[in-house]
Amino acid sequence: MRTDYCGLVTEALLGQTVSLCGWVHRRRDHGGVIFIDLRDREGLVQVVCDPDRPEVFKTAESVRNEYCLRITGVVRNRPEGTTNANLTSGKVEVLCHEIEVLNASVTPPFQLDDDNLSETTRLTHRVLDLRRPQMQNNLRLRYRVTMEVRKFLDANGFIDIETPMLTKSTPEGARDYLVPSRVNPGHFFALPQSPQLFKQLLMVANFDRYYQITKCFRDEDLRADRQPEFTQIDCETSFMKEQDIRDLFENMIRLVFTNVLGVELPNPFPVMDFATAMGMYGSDKPDMRVKLQFTELTDVMKDVDFKVFSAAANMQGGRVVALRVPGGGAMPRSEIDAYTQFVAIYGAKGLAYIKVNEKARGRDGLQSPIVKNINDTALTQIIERTGAEDGDLIFFGADKAKIVNDAIGALRVKIGHSDFGRKNGLFEDDWRPLWVVDFPMFEYDEGDDRWVALHHPFTAPKAGHEDFIATDPGRALAQAYDMVLNGWELGGGSVRIHRADVQSKVFRALKIEAEEAQAKFGFLLDALQYGAPPHGGLAFGLDRLVTMMAGAESIRDVIAFPKTQRAQDLLTQAPSEVDEKQLRELHIRLRNAEPAVKA
Amino acid sequence: MRTDYCGLVTEALLGQTVSLCGWVHRRRDHGGVIFIDLRDREGLVQVVCDPDRPEVFKTAESVRNEYCLRITGVVRNRPEGTTNANLTSGKVEVLCHEIEVLNASVTPPFQLDDDNLSETTRLTHRVLDLRRPQMQNNLRLRYRVTMEVRKFLDANGFIDIETPMLTKSTPEGARDYLVPSRVNPGHFFALPQSPQLFKQLLMVANFDRYYQITKCFRDEDLRADRQPEFTQIDCETSFMKEQDIRDLFENMIRLVFTNVLGVELPNPFPVMDFATAMGMYGSDKPDMRVKLQFTELTDVMKDVDFKVFSAAANMQGGRVVALRVPGGGAMPRSEIDAYTQFVAIYGAKGLAYIKVNEKARGRDGLQSPIVKNINDTALTQIIERTGAEDGDLIFFGADKAKIVNDAIGALRVKIGHSDFGRKNGLFEDDWRPLWVVDFPMFEYDEGDDRWVALHHPFTAPKAGHEDFIATDPGRALAQAYDMVLNGWELGGGSVRIHRADVQSKVFRALKIEAEEAQAKFGFLLDALQYGAPPHGGLAFGLDRLVTMMAGAESIRDVIAFPKTQRAQDLLTQAPSEVDEKQLRELHIRLRNAEPAVKA
Repeated sequence: MRTDYCGLVTEALLGQTVSLCGWVHRRRDHGGVIFIDLRDREGLVQVVCDPDRPEVFKTAESVRNEYCLRITGVVRNRPEGTTNANLTSGKVEVLCHEIEVLNASVTPPFQLDDDNLSETTRLTHRVLDLRRPQMQNNLRLRYRVTMEVRKFLDANGFIDIETPMLTKSTPEGARDYLVPSRVNPGHFFALPQSPQLFKQLLMVANFDRYYQITKCFRDEDLRADRQPEFTQIDCETSFMKEQDIRDLFENMIRLVFTNVLGVELPNPFPVMDFATAMGMYGSDKPDMRVKLQFTELTDVMKDVDFKVFSAAANMQGGRVVALRVPGGGAMPRSEIDAYTQFVAIYGAKGLAYIKVNEKARGRDGLQSPIVKNINDTALTQIIERTGAEDGDLIFFGADKAKIVNDAIGALRVKIGHSDFGRKNGLFEDDWRPLWVVDFPMFEYDEGDDRWVALHHPFTAPKAGHEDFIATDPGRALAQAYDMVLNGWELGGGSVRIHRADVQSKVFRALKIEAEEAQAKFGFLLDALQYGAPPHGGLAFGLDRLVTMMAGAESIRDVIAFPKTQRAQDLLTQAPSEVDEKQLRELHIRLRNAEPAVKA
Repeated sequence: MRTDYCGLVTEALLGQTVSLCGWVHRRRDHGGVIFIDLRDREGLVQVVCDPDRPEVFKTAESVRNEYCLRITGVVRNRPEGTTNANLTSGKVEVLCHEIEVLNASVTPPFQLDDDNLSETTRLTHRVLDLRRPQMQNNLRLRYRVTMEVRKFLDANGFIDIETPMLTKSTPEGARDYLVPSRVNPGHFFALPQSPQLFKQLLMVANFDRYYQITKCFRDEDLRADRQPEFTQIDCETSFMKEQDIRDLFENMIRLVFTNVLGVELPNPFPVMDFATAMGMYGSDKPDMRVKLQFTELTDVMKDVDFKVFSAAANMQGGRVVALRVPGGGAMPRSEIDAYTQFVAIYGAKGLAYIKVNEKARGRDGLQSPIVKNINDTALTQIIERTGAEDGDLIFFGADKAKIVNDAIGALRVKIGHSDFGRKNGLFEDDWRPLWVVDFPMFEYDEGDDRWVALHHPFTAPKAGHEDFIATDPGRALAQAYDMVLNGWELGGGSVRIHRADVQSKVFRALKIEAEEAQAKFGFLLDALQYGAPPHGGLAFGLDRLVTMMAGAESIRDVIAFPKTQRAQDLLTQAPSEVDEKQLRELHIRLRNAEPAVKA
C-alpha cells in the first residue's frame, strides 16, 4: 500500500512520487494551505495539501489527529527557512496528489506528546500510549537487544530450546502461579519461576549449550521494578569453568552495549568478591558510580561509652561502620535530618554523624553530639581509617550487620545520586559493570533456625569448599557470580552441582530429607546419576537490562502490556471473573462461595 | 575444558593433541586394547587406550556406558581397513594420553540405540531419550527453523514483541487454562490461546510489523498431534494487502526449507479456493501428493432407485461423490472391506463401489451390487465424469456433505498412502504446498442454530462481500488463507477488520450482543476507534512445521519435554497435588474437599 516509510523520506527521493501510510500527528492550516505531519513507525513527514487540488484539499480539511491516511504525492524541498533539523525528513515535504482516509479516529483522550500522563491513564489507553515515540523506541530497543543476544549465542553454538510453561509446583523460593488441571482432578500445574531444572536436564541430555529468552512467573507482592511475568535470557553450558562462563557472557553484554547503544563497556569488567562488596558497600550489587565507601569500625568500638556503637560492636553479628562524605560538612541540617528519616526505612534507629571542622584541633575540631562518648583511640581510628579531611562529614551505622548494610548502603547511593553528590564529584555518570563472585553457599535463617541456599540448592561449592557443606556451612563459598551494573543486578548464575553425592550433601545441610528431595527434585537427582556433565550458566533479567539501556524509569516502560502494582492489566481488565462452568470443569470452587448446607 | 568436539575430529587435526569431553557410547576390548566411542553433541570419535599407559588403561577398564569423560590424546589415522565412512571422524582415532572420569553413570534403563522403546519409557526417562541422535537432530532442526524465521523477519522489518501470558479469559473457541489470582480474590487470568487480540492492538499502536515465536495454550482433549502448550510463529503487519502478505510468508517458508533442508519448494505455491478444495478433495487441507479426486454426482443421482444415493442427492446439504481409483479393480475384496470399516469412523454408513471390468460392454461390464438400481443416464455420467477406464475401481460417498467430505476425503488419503497407492502411482513422495483461500466468513452451527465464525470474528470480508454479512452470511467470503503442506495446515491467517462498524456487523451476524462484545472485546473495539490501520497476518504452528521437516512421527518428538495424551509430564510428575496453604492463598478449594458442616 506504500512505497516508503514517512519517517524515511529524504532528499534521496526528491522529485519522486511516493505513497505513504500513517497517522495525522498534527494538522495546521497556514496561508490557505493545509500541512499534515504524517507519522508512521519511522517518524514524521510534512505533507502539503494546497487548494489547487480541491478534492485533496476537501479531504485534508476533514481529517483530525490520529486519522489513519494513505497519501500519494511528490517529494520536494521545503522552502528556505522552514526546514526542521530534528527530523530525518526535515529538509523535504510531500506535495499531496491523492489522499485516502483509511480510518477515522475519535478524539484521543490525551495528546500523544503530553509527558505528564498518569500511569493509570497510560495503561488504560495503552494502545495510544504505545504510539508515543518514547514507547516505540523502548520496544524497538528491546527487540534489538534480544536479536543481538540471539546472534551472539548462535555464533557461540548455543541452541534455543523451549522448556515447559505448564510444570511442577516446587514450593521453595517465591510463590508459584498455579494452573488447575481439568484432566487430573485435584492436581495443579505451576508456571515456571525459571527454567533452572529443565536447563540442567538439557545439559545432562547432551545439548551442550542452551539458551532461551523466556517468560518466568512469580506471584509476589510487586515492587516498583517487578512484574508477575518477566523475561529471562536463560543460558547454560556444559564443560566450561566459571571463569570461561563469565568471560563468555561478559563479551555478550559488551557486544550488546556496543551494537545497540554504541557504548564501550570496560574490558574486562572488574571482579569483586562478595565479602569485599558487603564490607565496602554493604551490598552485593554496589553502584560503582558512587564514590563513597564504608569504613569498618566494629573492632574499635567495643569499649566506647556511646552505647549504640559498643552494643552493636559487641553483639553477635553486629557491625559498626563509617561513611565519609567528602565536603559533607557543608550539608545543611535539614538534609541530614532527611537522611536520618531515610535510613529508618531500613530499620536504622538513628544516624550518628561527625562534622570534621578542623581535625588538627583533635576532639575540639569535631562537631557532633556523640564525640564526647567516644574515647580518643576510637576517635583517632575514625579519622585515620576514613581519611577524613576538614570539611567532611562522617555518618555512622551501628546495629545488626544486615541493618547497617541495608541502611548505610542505601544512604551511600542516596547521597551519591543527590544534587549534593553530583555537584561534589561523588557521582560519576557512566556505565560501571562489575562481577560479584565468591558468594556464600548458605545463609542462616534465624526465623526458621536453619541454613538456606543463598542462590539455589543446585549451586556448586568452590574447589576445596565441598567439605565445609557438612562441617561449617557458613564458611562454604559457591561458584556463583552476579553481573552488576550501576547498582542493579543484571544477571546471575553459577556452576551447578553435577554429582549426585554432592547434591545430597547440600540437601542434608539444608535439612531437606532424602524423601522430600526425591519428591521435589527426584527427576534432577535421577538425571545426575547418568553421567551428568560439569555444567553451569546464568540468567539475565531482560526487562531490567532494557530498562537501564533505554534510560526508562520503570520496567513497565519496556513491556508492551504490563501489569499494575496490583497485578492487573488495565487494558483487558484481567484478571476477571469466570463462569461457574469453567470452575466446575477444573474441580475447584471459590472459597467465598460456600456450598449450601443440606438440611 | 576441551579443545574440540568429539564428532568434529577429522584429518585436519592429525598429529595434534586434543582434549575432548563426552559420554562413553560403547567400550570394546579388542586384542588387549580398549576402544571407547566417545560421544558429544556433534557425534562420535574413537578413542584408543593401550596398555603402554597403565594408568589410562586402568581407568579405561573401569568406565561403563554413559560415563562422562574428559580425555586428552593425539589424533592419528585409523589403521587400514578400520575406517568408518558413516562418521565425520571415521578416518581418524585419538590415542589417549590422559583420561578423567568427570562423572560415573549407573546402568541406563535402555540402550540408546534401541529403536523400539515405548513412549512411556521414553517420556519417563526423557533425559536419556534426548541423548539419542534422532532427538538431538530434531531439536537442533527446530532451532535452525526458528533462527531462519527470525533472520527472515528481521530482514523484513518485523519486530519481536512479547505479549502477556497472564491474560483475560474469553470463553470463545477452545477451553482456557485458568490461573487464580491471589491479589484479586475470585478473579482468574487465562493463559493465551493465541496472541490474536494483542497483535492487532500492536498494529493499532503503530508497530507496523510484529512477530513472536510464543507458547499458546488450549485445554482440549488431546489428539495425536496436539499438546496443551504449543508454539506459534505469530506475525502481523499493517498496510499490506492479502496477496502481499501471502507472498511474504510464502517466501519465508520457502527460504526455511531451502536453508534448513536444502529443499526447493515450488515458486509460487499453487492457490486453490475453499470451494474447489472441498469440491475436489473434501478437505480444506488436501494432501496434494495423492493423485485422486472427487467427482461430483449430486445432480445426477436425484432420480436413481438406489435410495442411499437419491436420498443424499435430494436432502438439504446432501452430497454424492465418486472417487475413481485407477487400477483399483485389482484390489482384493478384503481391502475394500477394510476401507468400508475405515470410512465408518467418519460416520459413513457404507462404501458403495463399482469395478469397471469392461466398460465397452456398458452395464454388463460393471461389477457392483448397486449397478442394477442406477439408471442408464446416471451410470453413463459416472463413467464419463470420472473418466474411468477398464480395471478401475470407483468408490462412492452419499450422505450429508460433511460426512461425505470427511469420509471420502480420508479414504482418498488412505488409498493414496497405501502400498497399493504407492505401487500404482497414486502417490508422489514430494513437498506439495498449497494456499487455500476464499474461506467463508461463517458456517452454520445447527446445534446452536446460529452462524459461527469459521476462522475468528476479526476476519475481514472480501471486497464486495461486506453487505452479505447482514443479508446472507453464508455467502460472505473472507480474506482468509491457510498454508497447507502435504495434508497438514502449516499456518493460517487473514486480513483483519480494521473498522469498528464492520466489526459490529460481524458481531451482530454472530448474535453477539453489543454489551457482550464490549465486555469480551471492548479493548479491541475501543482501539479500532483511534484510526486503526488496515492490517493482517498469520500464524504458523511451529511444532507441526518441524515435525514435518524432521520426518518425525509425532510432535512429541520435536518438543524437549512434552506432555502425554493425559496432559501429564511423566518426567517431573506434573501436574501434582499442592499444599492446602497454596489453595487458601488463591481463594479456592477443591470440589471434592467439601468443608465440614458446622453443627
